[in-house]
Amino acid sequence: MKVMVIGATGAIGSAVARELAQRHEVIAVGSRSGQYQVNIEEFDQVQRLFAQAGSLDAVVVAAGALHVGPLAQLAPEHFHVGLRGKLMGQVNVALAAQQYLNDGGSITLTSGVDTDHPIRGAVAASTANAGVLGFVRAAAIELPRGLRINVVSPTVLQESMSTHGPLFIGFEPIAASRVALSYARSVDGAQTGQVYKAW
Amino acid sequence: MKVMVIGATGAIGSAVARELAQRHEVIAVGSRSGQYQVNIEEFDQVQRLFAQAGSLDAVVVAAGALHVGPLAQLAPEHFHVGLRGKLMGQVNVALAAQQYLNDGGSITLTSGVDTDHPIRGAVAASTANAGVLGFVRAAAIELPRGLRINVVSPTVLQESMSTHGPLFIGFEPIAASRVALSYARSVDGAQTGQVYKAW
Repeated sequence: MKVMVIGATGAIGSAVARELAQRHEVIAVGSRSGQYQVNIEEFDQVQRLFAQAGSLDAVVVAAGALHVGPLAQLAPEHFHVGLRGKLMGQVNVALAAQQYLNDGGSITLTSGVDTDHPIRGAVAASTANAGVLGFVRAAAIELPRGLRINVVSPTVLQESMSTHGPLFIGFEPIAASRVALSYARSVDGAQTGQVYKAW
Repeated sequence: MKVMVIGATGAIGSAVARELAQRHEVIAVGSRSGQYQVNIEEFDQVQRLFAQAGSLDAVVVAAGALHVGPLAQLAPEHFHVGLRGKLMGQVNVALAAQQYLNDGGSITLTSGVDTDHPIRGAVAASTANAGVLGFVRAAAIELPRGLRINVVSPTVLQESMSTHGPLFIGFEPIAASRVALSYARSVDGAQTGQVYKAW
């Protein structure tokens, strides 16, 4: 298969690219690096990316901005960061992918453990991440041509504990290489509308 | 208690206002009618509303625009309808309410059955409705002063079957007066972070 990984230089994306490259041709996409560059918040850039990349069997997104901060200090614009980035950035990819992917192809997006296990300071993030879950469950029943869509909900990575650890006290961090297996289950598997909980 | 009902002239909101008025003082708010008018998509209007309404023990929102249409025809702007309306409209109310409500007060928002039971044509709606669920679960653990927040997830109303029926084949419609009981459980009850499924 030919698989596009968007966010391929991030902690999760790079592990996903390594996991998938064992069996598939991987197209690495980043915001500033990789084989192609894209800002997923801009739908026209996303459409251009798919038009340039040619025939694809799968796309994985491990990207999208989020705001972290206490509820008492949140204004609407803090929510817009995640709604534009993590949520609509990934929706933009899925909307383009439904037109460009080969028959039977798959879309795999990323949410987060905070939708199931709320943590302090993550209200705006959880709002966007929950939107991604809702999008995936609903899109799965309408995608044409045997296309599939799933979402991986990762917990905090071992690789991110130095920066994110204080937010995730009591959460068991897992290696990005293990999180990447959930993405492989989606890409190489046959299910649709699933949430793969990587925790 | 003094309870503000936003969307008080809608099918759900008017039933909620009737239910709550049996025990509480109800302030009816609409977009074009009611004791006060507000466009919940405008945060400054929402803040002004709370400043004008004075001392409040609870706020209920049964309002917020959504887009309905097949996935194949969706563009990003169709998602923005629900993200601006049903999602951020309600988030705006909660953000203002956390500052203005009396100690121990409650916020009750509205989602929809489609997040749990996807239906065709509801992808953009489910995305916004799921965002509301994520917001409520996360906000519940951070609200100050004993404030509570819950969300009601209603199925299709008996009163809406003439317009919404074709979307909800196989769903058992329920009377708005029964849906209103879930809002009363949130307002008069003591739980927080709950999803009350009215179906």
